[in-house]
Amino acid sequence: MADPIPIIGGTGALGYGLALRWGRAGIPVVIGSRDAARAEEAAGKVAAAVNGAEVEGFENGEAAARGPIAFLTVPFRAQSETLNNLRAALTDGQLLVDCTVPLAAAVSGKATRTLGVWQGSAAQQAQEMVPDGVTVVSALHSVGAPMLSDLDHEMDEDVLVCGDKKADKARVAELIEAIPGLRAINAGALETARIVEQLTPLLISINVRHKAHAGIRITGLPDGSDW
Amino acid sequence: MADPIPIIGGTGALGYGLALRWGRAGIPVVIGSRDAARAEEAAGKVAAAVNGAEVEGFENGEAAARGPIAFLTVPFRAQSETLNNLRAALTDGQLLVDCTVPLAAAVSGKATRTLGVWQGSAAQQAQEMVPDGVTVVSALHSVGAPMLSDLDHEMDEDVLVCGDKKADKARVAELIEAIPGLRAINAGALETARIVEQLTPLLISINVRHKAHAGIRITGLPDGSDW
Repeated sequence: MADPIPIIGGTGALGYGLALRWGRAGIPVVIGSRDAARAEEAAGKVAAAVNGAEVEGFENGEAAARGPIAFLTVPFRAQSETLNNLRAALTDGQLLVDCTVPLAAAVSGKATRTLGVWQGSAAQQAQEMVPDGVTVVSALHSVGAPMLSDLDHEMDEDVLVCGDKKADKARVAELIEAIPGLRAINAGALETARIVEQLTPLLISINVRHKAHAGIRITGLPDGSDW
Repeated sequence: MADPIPIIGGTGALGYGLALRWGRAGIPVVIGSRDAARAEEAAGKVAAAVNGAEVEGFENGEAAARGPIAFLTVPFRAQSETLNNLRAALTDGQLLVDCTVPLAAAVSGKATRTLGVWQGSAAQQAQEMVPDGVTVVSALHSVGAPMLSDLDHEMDEDVLVCGDKKADKARVAELIEAIPGLRAINAGALETARIVEQLTPLLISINVRHKAHAGIRITGLPDGSDW
């Protein structure tokens, strides 16, 4: 029986899309929100959309404690506050998968531009803020929430995963690849999130020009799993 | 009859690979180097490798004047000096395609990291340095020189093109797509080069981990040419 996946900020577009996809893949999901009632409501929507989905909704802290690999899908402007609030909830040995992107839109700038983050990237900021013993992995920045949420859409793209230990990235990759059409790629150390987080504004720039929902594929890799 | 393509720094790995590919595509190429003799030597190698290739070699300034769209393929540490030396050679209305990437390797750092460039990107630095009336377009950062130079290798990747005018980007795209297997994508304004230049260290990070020669594809775009 698979461990449940806590999705912190799971009422937002990316988190909700992931909940739908994992729900359909038979993996239990726990949606977190600042507001427990909103989390329960989102869980109800997932259950209604996906026959047999195992999904519950709780306040973020309670949600985070429900599984060993939690996903953080809040907007960048809420990242620090959310991590502060999670300090007591996250536990030694847990993985936190940071999906936030420091778009300039967080401070009313453009979504095709990013903010400079003191630590280098949102993921590195997260690593600085989590309790000792919690490890941050960075992933899922370039997957479009509208495409995830449209269950009739067949996903067809790569997810670049950054982190300092391959074994941690491999555990996250397994969850990502439980969603059909997504391939997880080992993109490097956590510091490489500085680059990978920039793919989101790049794809937004491409989307605007092509009226599309673009994704990334890496070509030229050997066949077979890397993990 | 196609205009010749000047390749400034065409004795380097990327420039040489482009010369081979355009030579095979029947487009005349002018290889530029600081040293005219080295440029002639590289031109001779291209002519020997590709039956019927039209290729000449000149000192950079003389090469740059030979065609309306010049490609700058020098390493980042030589970019400013080269552009200073080209001031008298570049002319009103000319396009300069900047392919340089500010890898930290330029100052003995890692090839998986970049330097911060005051203007935001190497391409924006180039735009500041070229004479009035010369327009910079940014492209070809993520195409591996070893793959270009191996004429038995079938290219299979996208090239992200940044620039402030779509018409300029379209002219550059035509030259890029003259190389079979490359698709040019309108990635945004010149400032988006800040992101696109980061794809090179990202792919280097992926290459190291996968022992591969990785490239980029953008998924989810509508069929047909954008230009």
